[in-house]
Amino acid sequence: MQPTCENKYSRMTNADFLDNLVEKITTTFDDKKGINHIKGYNLPTKNEIFAILNDLLELVFPGYSGTKNYDITTIHYSIGTLLSRIYSELFQQITKVLHYNCEITDCEDCNIPEMAADATEFLLESIPKIRTIMKRDVTASYEGDPAAQSFDEIILSYPGIRAITVQRLAHALYSKKIPLIPRLMTEYAHSETGIDIHPGAKMGNGIFIDHGTGVVIGETTMIGDNVKIYQGVTLGALSFPKDESGNIIKGMKRHPSIDKNVTIYAGATILGDITIGKGSIIGGNVWITEDLPPFSKVAISKGKQVVKKK
Amino acid sequence: MQPTCENKYSRMTNADFLDNLVEKITTTFDDKKGINHIKGYNLPTKNEIFAILNDLLELVFPGYSGTKNYDITTIHYSIGTLLSRIYSELFQQITKVLHYNCEITDCEDCNIPEMAADATEFLLESIPKIRTIMKRDVTASYEGDPAAQSFDEIILSYPGIRAITVQRLAHALYSKKIPLIPRLMTEYAHSETGIDIHPGAKMGNGIFIDHGTGVVIGETTMIGDNVKIYQGVTLGALSFPKDESGNIIKGMKRHPSIDKNVTIYAGATILGDITIGKGSIIGGNVWITEDLPPFSKVAISKGKQVVKKK
Amino acid sequence: MQPTCENKYSRMTNADFLDNLVEKITTTFDDKKGINHIKGYNLPTKNEIFAILNDLLELVFPGYSGTKNYDITTIHYSIGTLLSRIYSELFQQITKVLHYNCEITDCEDCNIPEMAADATEFLLESIPKIRTIMKRDVTASYEGDPAAQSFDEIILSYPGIRAITVQRLAHALYSKKIPLIPRLMTEYAHSETGIDIHPGAKMGNGIFIDHGTGVVIGETTMIGDNVKIYQGVTLGALSFPKDESGNIIKGMKRHPSIDKNVTIYAGATILGDITIGKGSIIGGNVWITEDLPPFSKVAISKGKQVVKKK
Repeated sequence: MQPTCENKYSRMTNADFLDNLVEKITTTFDDKKGINHIKGYNLPTKNEIFAILNDLLELVFPGYSGTKNYDITTIHYSIGTLLSRIYSELFQQITKVLHYNCEITDCEDCNIPEMAADATEFLLESIPKIRTIMKRDVTASYEGDPAAQSFDEIILSYPGIRAITVQRLAHALYSKKIPLIPRLMTEYAHSETGIDIHPGAKMGNGIFIDHGTGVVIGETTMIGDNVKIYQGVTLGALSFPKDESGNIIKGMKRHPSIDKNVTIYAGATILGDITIGKGSIIGGNVWITEDLPPFSKVAISKGKQVVKKK
Repeated sequence: MQPTCENKYSRMTNADFLDNLVEKITTTFDDKKGINHIKGYNLPTKNEIFAILNDLLELVFPGYSGTKNYDITTIHYSIGTLLSRIYSELFQQITKVLHYNCEITDCEDCNIPEMAADATEFLLESIPKIRTIMKRDVTASYEGDPAAQSFDEIILSYPGIRAITVQRLAHALYSKKIPLIPRLMTEYAHSETGIDIHPGAKMGNGIFIDHGTGVVIGETTMIGDNVKIYQGVTLGALSFPKDESGNIIKGMKRHPSIDKNVTIYAGATILGDITIGKGSIIGGNVWITEDLPPFSKVAISKGKQVVKKK
Repeated sequence: MQPTCENKYSRMTNADFLDNLVEKITTTFDDKKGINHIKGYNLPTKNEIFAILNDLLELVFPGYSGTKNYDITTIHYSIGTLLSRIYSELFQQITKVLHYNCEITDCEDCNIPEMAADATEFLLESIPKIRTIMKRDVTASYEGDPAAQSFDEIILSYPGIRAITVQRLAHALYSKKIPLIPRLMTEYAHSETGIDIHPGAKMGNGIFIDHGTGVVIGETTMIGDNVKIYQGVTLGALSFPKDESGNIIKGMKRHPSIDKNVTIYAGATILGDITIGKGSIIGGNVWITEDLPPFSKVAISKGKQVVKKK
């Protein structure tokens, strides 16, 4: 009799074990929560949203992704190809998400194709303006960072530029009240850069976010032109008003308004629906929950640290 | 005579240069450190761990990855297929890593197939419970964040939900003392989300981590139900007791215990094996190294900042 | 007459809309800014830089990526294959980027092939030394972290090790004044780990960066041996001297020098061209802008927080 030749890296799975477990897991689907199934509605597909986003980034900074070569005399063909692909794919995903939205809100009278075309065209038509603004953002990075060697280096590698570009694109869809897709876009950038800007935030021109990891900019934040923001800065909410049933009221203005030419150093936290006046300088690690007039300076006091020298 | 047509983007590499360098580099392998070779033991394969993890996430929230469609009447087939694939692949990777562990600890009497099957089945059997808990976490995010529009948005895009789900899965393997794989899983989530939760941490139900970038939750941390944690919060160790030879003692309880219903605002640092009593509110940027009784409130004092208004 | 069977997820795009938009977008290319086209110069290709970087990481820690198996008796063939591939691909990308640089600086007399070969060989020749230093870094992580179970776990999963290895590789190219590529490499690591170390920083041996999210280490920083750095630490610039025209002067020493055996806890901010003396301990969340003598200890004062206990 021969010994059993067992493959140590695999084994017969116990069919009963699996059957039993399939049963237990499918039981947890009975409430229909946490499961996206075709008989219900269909969510947008993450990877398709990310592919569309990368095409949009290619429109804003052609050639920088390194996936395509552009010839200046024939570039309108390349841009045309790109644009028509984005149009059809974005239209599809927006249509999906509007169906989903009508499904969960029991709405019956939306003209979904019209709404989807409108939002798609609104985003695409905003590309020339976004390109113009992004050039100012790139210039702001160049002028604000002694380590920056060239505009190309900034476009290719600065996480702040990446996060802001994505947010400006997502904001166009947010302003057309498209659900899910804008947030998927900014969370993609958040995952890549550590910079979390809600699609709802209103951003001026010439914004410079340096390093950026840990930056949080909330939904109803307004940021003026030429604002500089360093890593770890939070522009957040202080408290959440609740309705009579004790539920948080969604959508109210609850984040700061930052006037133009403000600089906010690393780790500063600015909370609530307050205004930071133009030209103010907010020092690192400070904590602000009240309005500040123009040209204010805030810093940590001397003497709050104990220094023992040997 | 024709001119040499040189391709400016390539050139003959100097064979002597390469030979010489291969020799120098292989010499640095003589101590067998920093090299994983087949004559030694075999480490788990990162990409396979990540593929298994994505399958596990698909089990917890079916349909949200967008890679598969589910029909509610036939979903048990889809779940069965998914489960049996995860079983065999996870069993393989765990077997590998247990062999590795026996190799480095000179252990000879482990029944590796039994141990691998036990850990694989333990993780899979915990899926229904993890699904139930995650539904509470999603609800906590929805109730705690005025910007949240729907449960779907939270499951699709909130980094806190992603990091917590991965940690709950990794914790099942950690509690079976499986080396390497749990940490690879949580570091995958850390890389995606900026949220670093050690697989050893014990997490209650209904946890809400908002934004999350920079959150660190150490190995022996315990977190009660309905705790809210904002970006940049550290639940860490204060000091590391050493043994007689001056080496750090591994594995001791050295991180905080956070009771239920505690809120910890952005940038707060809580260090050491201390207890934060239930219902406490820990303000942003504070620094805590001592026990706090239930319902404590801690905040930065007024007056620690200098404000100059023009 | 049959009803039109319309596919609700697609529709004819308006040709006029697209033509019009292509025209508007291409107009924004007229200033040649924010577009990389083949008639101009060619930037390095991001994905090729990342592929080369992953090959380089395989050289430093063979076998840990899980993409290749190594046999200790034939490993010199594997290393030879890897080295010759890296040589030709890195040479190509460096050649590209030097052409780009000559283009934007109107330089005409560079011997680009010689310069590219020199930089490529300099990086490759530094691999044995980088391997030796990285072994000390891995040991420092093991000795400094009670949660670390093995050297393998650290190499496989610690973000600090990943970010430091990439920076040491990028620094070799930086020191040969290669533009763009070093920064693309460190930003790749930044995106993966949340740790932002400029390629210019000079790093000693046995550096341990724990958790790491939010760490920023500026271009002219110098770090001595056996320094420990926790998450959220900034080693940054305090102010940027400007020239007579008001433009920031690039390249000056403006970041701290950290002597050996210094520990810097989470969230500390150290700014400017100052020196932190050897053996100093810098507490969490402190803010330092002046020199500190050896063996200094800095911490947040008691009493700066308000604690209300119920």
